[in-house]
Amino acid sequence: MIMRALIISLLSVGTIAASPAIAAEPIQPIEAAKPKNENMVELGKMLFFDPRLSKSGFISCNSCHNLSMGGSDNLPSSIGHKWHQGPINSPTVLNSSMNLAQFWDGRAKDLKDQAGGPIANPGEMAFSHELAVGVLQSIPQYRARFKEVFGSDKIDIGMVTDAIAAFEETLVTPGSRFDKWLKGDKTAINQTELEGYKLFKETGCTGCHNGAAVGGASFQKMGVLEPFETQSKAEGRFAVTGKEEDRMFFKVPTLRNVELTYPYFHDGSAATLADAVNTMGRIQLGRNFTKDENAKIVAFLKTLTGKQPELTLPILPPSTKDTPRPHPFD
Amino acid sequence: MIMRALIISLLSVGTIAASPAIAAEPIQPIEAAKPKNENMVELGKMLFFDPRLSKSGFISCNSCHNLSMGGSDNLPSSIGHKWHQGPINSPTVLNSSMNLAQFWDGRAKDLKDQAGGPIANPGEMAFSHELAVGVLQSIPQYRARFKEVFGSDKIDIGMVTDAIAAFEETLVTPGSRFDKWLKGDKTAINQTELEGYKLFKETGCTGCHNGAAVGGASFQKMGVLEPFETQSKAEGRFAVTGKEEDRMFFKVPTLRNVELTYPYFHDGSAATLADAVNTMGRIQLGRNFTKDENAKIVAFLKTLTGKQPELTLPILPPSTKDTPRPHPFD
Repeated sequence: MIMRALIISLLSVGTIAASPAIAAEPIQPIEAAKPKNENMVELGKMLFFDPRLSKSGFISCNSCHNLSMGGSDNLPSSIGHKWHQGPINSPTVLNSSMNLAQFWDGRAKDLKDQAGGPIANPGEMAFSHELAVGVLQSIPQYRARFKEVFGSDKIDIGMVTDAIAAFEETLVTPGSRFDKWLKGDKTAINQTELEGYKLFKETGCTGCHNGAAVGGASFQKMGVLEPFETQSKAEGRFAVTGKEEDRMFFKVPTLRNVELTYPYFHDGSAATLADAVNTMGRIQLGRNFTKDENAKIVAFLKTLTGKQPELTLPILPPSTKDTPRPHPFD
Repeated sequence: MIMRALIISLLSVGTIAASPAIAAEPIQPIEAAKPKNENMVELGKMLFFDPRLSKSGFISCNSCHNLSMGGSDNLPSSIGHKWHQGPINSPTVLNSSMNLAQFWDGRAKDLKDQAGGPIANPGEMAFSHELAVGVLQSIPQYRARFKEVFGSDKIDIGMVTDAIAAFEETLVTPGSRFDKWLKGDKTAINQTELEGYKLFKETGCTGCHNGAAVGGASFQKMGVLEPFETQSKAEGRFAVTGKEEDRMFFKVPTLRNVELTYPYFHDGSAATLADAVNTMGRIQLGRNFTKDENAKIVAFLKTLTGKQPELTLPILPPSTKDTPRPHPFD
């Protein structure tokens, strides 16, 4: 009786949050973010959009992780200070809190650790942590917000990256059609998309692309059965560990919102999903997908686009006469 | 009796919308925008934030008219394609619909006319109208929105600039403390700010900085009583009319939100409001403001900061396999 009541209750709410059916799937639905500290998230959002964290005053986190464009810049590799051509494709910030580590080579252990990187990278924001903090410290409204969030208005880079990470943790994308299907709405995806999902599982894609983020949970070799041909000099985990066996091991990217995060791979060399699926099949799985199979898998991948974070553009407090000025052309 | 009833009625609502007291002031309050076509405004917002209107796929209208930063980039001159250093300070887009013409030299007659300029300027977005339209035309969600707004999904640059202008027309900033004071709330500004306003009027600043936008209504010579010393090669209206008497005549900038739109002047050479007020007093009015006078005028100017537009960040539709890719490094 209890069981029957439970089933009726589950059916009546329309979604089956932890049903055996979901548990059996290699992909799990994304849950909405539950921010722990709204004030910290709001401060982090301001910092994420503030180009004064760069030497030029022109580049913000949002420049390369554009939240209008799937949290990416949709470029093969990013544009940094003085139009520096970055060495690698900018990964999406959406759902990035689910990654086992940050950056393609996983050299940052978490979002906080990652957030400080681009600020001080000469080819990205080209600033230093000290200078960035100095800018913020000169602005009374920022001091007040840091005081409110951290209990101190003596700003340090740890507070800055804590706040940015707290904001980034809210950038999750539940509500995709695929998640609706996972939760029991069998009309949420069509037959082609379902066949694509079956192919995605049967051919082994889910070996790496699994879990709630459909990736992000492991480092894997790029080019298992055939070498990956690329102009990129990136060596993956090898650059972090120095171990030969880690050469060309990269963090498996999330496939959530993959429709929005083109171009693909760490070198941005695959312009379209069809290209990416073809290459993955060939070099990772030893499989030449037919045109029909490819189209079905691509159709499935597009069901992973979730509800994008709805953000009010932050209004940034003005610099003061004491704020160090940006140096875009030095 | 009628008069008395009117006065009581006006006092009872707390604001005096068209009272003789306001009419006597050289500055008028800003009224909220009344968008004529919400769908066109929403489309315009998407285009304003879409970097795919640039050759690089990196620069959008919002890059230099950043709506988080007073509708400006807070740089002396802007950064364009391949980090090109622009020749002039980026004017704020806020309240720009009130300007008699657009650009510092007024070479565009209105916002629509202006909007196409940066897209095709090799030193700004470095694209062409044809290429920008081609990108939009390749994206079904854009086609659908243009169809909805303009009745046709054969996109042309006129539709693009119409939509951007419609969005920009909504970017007004009512509700400043000074406007509250103008409307009858005598506690909205303090004694120092009021004295600053009196100085602003008495010394002649309102000769040019008047009306709802506190500027934007005329072209005036930069350097009336003393030449303006600058590294900038900009010649103002002369570049448009070819008339010698127009040399160094520039559009008077709005002082609305001037606290947010530093640095100042067409060459961005005044880093702070105090600098700008000093220079203006000296070269335009032949007056050396005392430190106290300067501080009062600056205090007044800061009361002109209005409520910034509250915008939900647009989510841009993804490119398709048919969308021409950006060329950031060509």
